[in-house]
Amino acid sequence: MNPTLEIFSQGEEVVTGQIVDTNAAWLSEQAVTMGFTVTRHTAVGDKLDDLVTLLREISVRADCCVCTGGLGPTVDDLTSEAVAEAFDLPLEFDAVAFEQIKRFFTLRNRIMPESNRKQAMFPKGAERIDNAWGTAPGFSLQVGRCWFSFVPGVPKEMQHLFLETIRPTLASRFLLRPEKLVTIKTLGIGESAIQEIISAIEIPAQVQLGFRASPDDVQTKLLFPHDYPETAMNSLASKIAAALGDNVFAIDGFGPASGDLVFTVDQLMTSEKYTLALVETASQGLLAAKCVGLKWLLETRYEQSLERLGQKLGITINADDLWATAQAIASEIKQTGDADFVLVQLYAGDSQTFHDKDQAIILYNVLLTGDGFHRTTHSVAGPIKRKQNQSALLALDLLRRYLQHKEL
Amino acid sequence: MNPTLEIFSQGEEVVTGQIVDTNAAWLSEQAVTMGFTVTRHTAVGDKLDDLVTLLREISVRADCCVCTGGLGPTVDDLTSEAVAEAFDLPLEFDAVAFEQIKRFFTLRNRIMPESNRKQAMFPKGAERIDNAWGTAPGFSLQVGRCWFSFVPGVPKEMQHLFLETIRPTLASRFLLRPEKLVTIKTLGIGESAIQEIISAIEIPAQVQLGFRASPDDVQTKLLFPHDYPETAMNSLASKIAAALGDNVFAIDGFGPASGDLVFTVDQLMTSEKYTLALVETASQGLLAAKCVGLKWLLETRYEQSLERLGQKLGITINADDLWATAQAIASEIKQTGDADFVLVQLYAGDSQTFHDKDQAIILYNVLLTGDGFHRTTHSVAGPIKRKQNQSALLALDLLRRYLQHKEL
Repeated sequence: MNPTLEIFSQGEEVVTGQIVDTNAAWLSEQAVTMGFTVTRHTAVGDKLDDLVTLLREISVRADCCVCTGGLGPTVDDLTSEAVAEAFDLPLEFDAVAFEQIKRFFTLRNRIMPESNRKQAMFPKGAERIDNAWGTAPGFSLQVGRCWFSFVPGVPKEMQHLFLETIRPTLASRFLLRPEKLVTIKTLGIGESAIQEIISAIEIPAQVQLGFRASPDDVQTKLLFPHDYPETAMNSLASKIAAALGDNVFAIDGFGPASGDLVFTVDQLMTSEKYTLALVETASQGLLAAKCVGLKWLLETRYEQSLERLGQKLGITINADDLWATAQAIASEIKQTGDADFVLVQLYAGDSQTFHDKDQAIILYNVLLTGDGFHRTTHSVAGPIKRKQNQSALLALDLLRRYLQHKEL
Repeated sequence: MNPTLEIFSQGEEVVTGQIVDTNAAWLSEQAVTMGFTVTRHTAVGDKLDDLVTLLREISVRADCCVCTGGLGPTVDDLTSEAVAEAFDLPLEFDAVAFEQIKRFFTLRNRIMPESNRKQAMFPKGAERIDNAWGTAPGFSLQVGRCWFSFVPGVPKEMQHLFLETIRPTLASRFLLRPEKLVTIKTLGIGESAIQEIISAIEIPAQVQLGFRASPDDVQTKLLFPHDYPETAMNSLASKIAAALGDNVFAIDGFGPASGDLVFTVDQLMTSEKYTLALVETASQGLLAAKCVGLKWLLETRYEQSLERLGQKLGITINADDLWATAQAIASEIKQTGDADFVLVQLYAGDSQTFHDKDQAIILYNVLLTGDGFHRTTHSVAGPIKRKQNQSALLALDLLRRYLQHKEL
């Protein structure tokens, strides 16, 4: 049995719905990867009684708990007081923490307000968690069954403290047997088509198969037991990836960590020193926006009227033959510009179709490279922002397929 | 005292962090607006014992609870069973629900799998919540102190069922005294500057003042008690909005509902039938992307090299005078294009500065309209994606200021 872990989020802004609690999901994913079973998330506001009650509940229920929020300098920040009251521990002044908090202000040429002093008060027996990322140090302590860690609720600070201090501590305090997760990321193929392809492959009963469709990709997840042999793991994952063919743009879980589609394309473009010019229609700037700051993207343009774009480029638009039109646009831009590749995205469908979530547009993507034209077509439906995002990704994915396979 | 409400989210995908629980925040905001005090969010996985324990806890602790998830047809969906076991209620077959579920499949030319039959089983005494948006009906029932409502976890279905069925029921079952919230939305001024300006205005003790800085705006929030006089409320909000001047782009809470900056600009551009051409640098397509599908945006272009853009437009680039350069670009595009307005965004700072989160770029926005040039400048710091987003918003905000005030 894995040790159990709970997440506890403190703050009126969470409990009243002013912010979405992304910390809980982030911490849970980390904890599951480490080998904990996450049993519960709880969020409460800044009321001392509610905090005390919850702390006592958790101390007899879970092996471990990570708590976010309530460590700031204001009167709303009650975590230390709540721990002290819940478990009958006196608060003690920590001179080292106080020096750190003062230094944070000195380094920024600011004077420390008197209210920050309370951030150096910890319940007796607590281990301090130093915080180089903000003013609030965290702390850990064992109460009853549970090892509690308290960190600030600011996501960036929380993540640093978890990765640098809490994770190593938990790894040494608990006997963990983490499962191994392989994630195969695809674009251009739906979840049910993937399931059908994979159904022909035999998957051992100990391996858990799952799927996750996000706005940016479809992920096939394979969860292996702690002691599953590495070679068998790699061979199964490779077999599935091979069956999914060039729809796969990245695999997470063995080898170097991968990222999203932009990351994959950036690696390929940068290593081969290619450059790109872009014409967007349905994605309306979003494809360029996703590539912000990347050196290989030289230009993009969006023109609402295809006629007008044709006039400006001096080419004839044939709305009945979008392949020919896209090729003509790409050739003209290649001739007059500096980019190695030109990627042109057009679509069939009027403004009404584009806006209507129940209608689909047909995308025509053309990529012009040194060895000619390459093309893909897709039907994209859903709300306008989904159409926009899918259009950006599917056009970029044509470039990715070319770079990875050089044959289409 | 307001009645208390808890949110209960069921699902392994929530508790293991595979998805962020946005339902809890959405429901909480709705409940707070109605006049409930939200006291707790809890998420647990698909284990019957955990569900039973939690349901019993909530039944003696809260006046009301909205539960999401666990109503699907698979073996993981245990909500009805858990309610039955927790409160010793038999499950009963609901023939009307069963007909609705069958009809959902018939309308889609699909055959209902046998497993969906369980979705028509409800604990004795429950009121069914019809679901026209999916296969899973919800249900409500009173147990102990608490009025429970159970709905599917799919956000769209959940939101429809809440707004159409649960909200009216809660409004009739509970004596609610909702507070009134006025939100003043600004761009181009920071939180501390706003606080300083407002500190000169006397705010009655019953009115709660709050601030919220998001990536897209800074919001000043005024929370008024239920019985606060309407005229006094409007007068205080107007006074604060006036003090913040043309930094205010929208006010929520009285009059017609407003939206984000794009919404405000869209209203103004559409009502005056203006059109716009755009040149983006730091926002790299994101400004156009935010305006997806809006008719008044005729074109955008992004060119990584300002030199190259100058060559293409046939104008001279003076990197030491970005105002003059931006004006020259705007004039050229106005002359050769169809748009009423041209908005040009340039920035000072090299690629290194743009990428470095600790360095700032200086934005130069120029808007060319029928009555000449208008301009704003801003310093923008932070990670590259923040710089990009702020640059998009601040350029668009120059257009908003012109449209709302026609004097800059």
